[in-house]
Amino acid sequence: MRITDADIALAQALADAAGAAIRPHFRAGFDVETKDDQSPVTIADRAAEQAMRALLAAEAPRDGIVGEEFGTIEGSTGRQWVLDPIDGTVSFVAGRPIFGTLIALVQDGWPVIGVIDQPIGRERWVGAAGRPTLFNGQPVRSRACRDLAEATLATTGPHYFSDHDAEHFMALAAKCAHRRMVFGGDCYNYGLVASGHIDLVVEAGLKLYDFAALVPVVEGAGGMMCDWSGEPLTADSKGDVIAAGDPARIDDILEALACHGH
Amino acid sequence: MRITDADIALAQALADAAGAAIRPHFRAGFDVETKDDQSPVTIADRAAEQAMRALLAAEAPRDGIVGEEFGTIEGSTGRQWVLDPIDGTVSFVAGRPIFGTLIALVQDGWPVIGVIDQPIGRERWVGAAGRPTLFNGQPVRSRACRDLAEATLATTGPHYFSDHDAEHFMALAAKCAHRRMVFGGDCYNYGLVASGHIDLVVEAGLKLYDFAALVPVVEGAGGMMCDWSGEPLTADSKGDVIAAGDPARIDDILEALACHGH
Repeated sequence: MRITDADIALAQALADAAGAAIRPHFRAGFDVETKDDQSPVTIADRAAEQAMRALLAAEAPRDGIVGEEFGTIEGSTGRQWVLDPIDGTVSFVAGRPIFGTLIALVQDGWPVIGVIDQPIGRERWVGAAGRPTLFNGQPVRSRACRDLAEATLATTGPHYFSDHDAEHFMALAAKCAHRRMVFGGDCYNYGLVASGHIDLVVEAGLKLYDFAALVPVVEGAGGMMCDWSGEPLTADSKGDVIAAGDPARIDDILEALACHGH
Repeated sequence: MRITDADIALAQALADAAGAAIRPHFRAGFDVETKDDQSPVTIADRAAEQAMRALLAAEAPRDGIVGEEFGTIEGSTGRQWVLDPIDGTVSFVAGRPIFGTLIALVQDGWPVIGVIDQPIGRERWVGAAGRPTLFNGQPVRSRACRDLAEATLATTGPHYFSDHDAEHFMALAAKCAHRRMVFGGDCYNYGLVASGHIDLVVEAGLKLYDFAALVPVVEGAGGMMCDWSGEPLTADSKGDVIAAGDPARIDDILEALACHGH
């Protein structure tokens, strides 16, 4: 598992390409289509993923690709570029600058590079295994959390949980700082964990392209990501994820999540 | 009820002063205190309100003031400046640039000028009775919504509703576009209604300083604000609010809200 500066530069070039494709559409008139899973998609999602795929075809033609909008290309290197052109399309459509482009390099199933890019505010987190996470070029650290009762917990929306998962989430939420919870935000919340402004993000049912990029960003900042059983996140994970700024709180989080609510 | 250009200029100068007080603290180290209602407050909230009060003492000493952090000053003109230095302190504390400073001029109980200012992204909506709402100086219009089933509904968080209100809210949410709902955002969502990116915001239990500024912004863009009974919002309102980009949908919204959920 070797990561080179060239790999990180390519990940950043992909984010540049996606941002250039997305910016002209933000708050502009566009059609919103509904996919089979009832989630929305726009020309901006597709244009950004196409721009990234064109760059990969030129720069890394033997690597595989997994993209939200245009599926999978098998590679021959054990490496896959995992692309979510707009994570938080609902926020994008609503004109909120807290969506992001997600780019991950997954090697033998493990996310080893991750980029979270917010192209409107021009905010970018870059994580790579064994290196410190950078926010707009500067190292960031997640923060200590001595007690769950003081933790700021974030999640995109309660309606993304099944009734069963919601019960477990609410059991955890009841142990966190109730009046500090933040909703909405998608990938942006995980960047804020890396930067030490949010303590904890818990979500369920994410796809590989939703979570792969988050892992190197959060862990390179000193945080920890795992699934709801405490297992590391890999290409085979089910997509129930925890991001904790302070790894010392993971046992408390898993214990609280394991209980039923109310 | 006369609004002058000078009143609007003063409202904007208040937003400038608040923004200058807030920006140095965003994502910087600060203590977060907890108020009696368990909501957080920071030095940025207090510094921004003090900056606005200092300007009002100089420019409009006979007008009254209602502010979130420093209470009420009775005036002698029938006019009150209603100030929320940071609406969305939870978002501010979490490092998300979707909080806002709210400034309203209320005359004989009616909100006649409103400013929603986002000082990090430097986004500002200005509404005044009888004038078109401006976003960063350009007129904006809310959008038509032919059917609630296609409506993007926003609210800051489900945990801000009482159990009783949550039932009614969920009955409305069930009639809107489920996979288009956005959470989080506080006052920022109402600006996005004015700009035609969100169709509907519904919240409960807001204070006067939370909602007074929103009314001229939304209504000057062609939208409508009212309480959950359809009554106009005044200084005496209970703070259960609806903002609809398309006034033609108000009856559908009130009918859906009046039903119990699930």
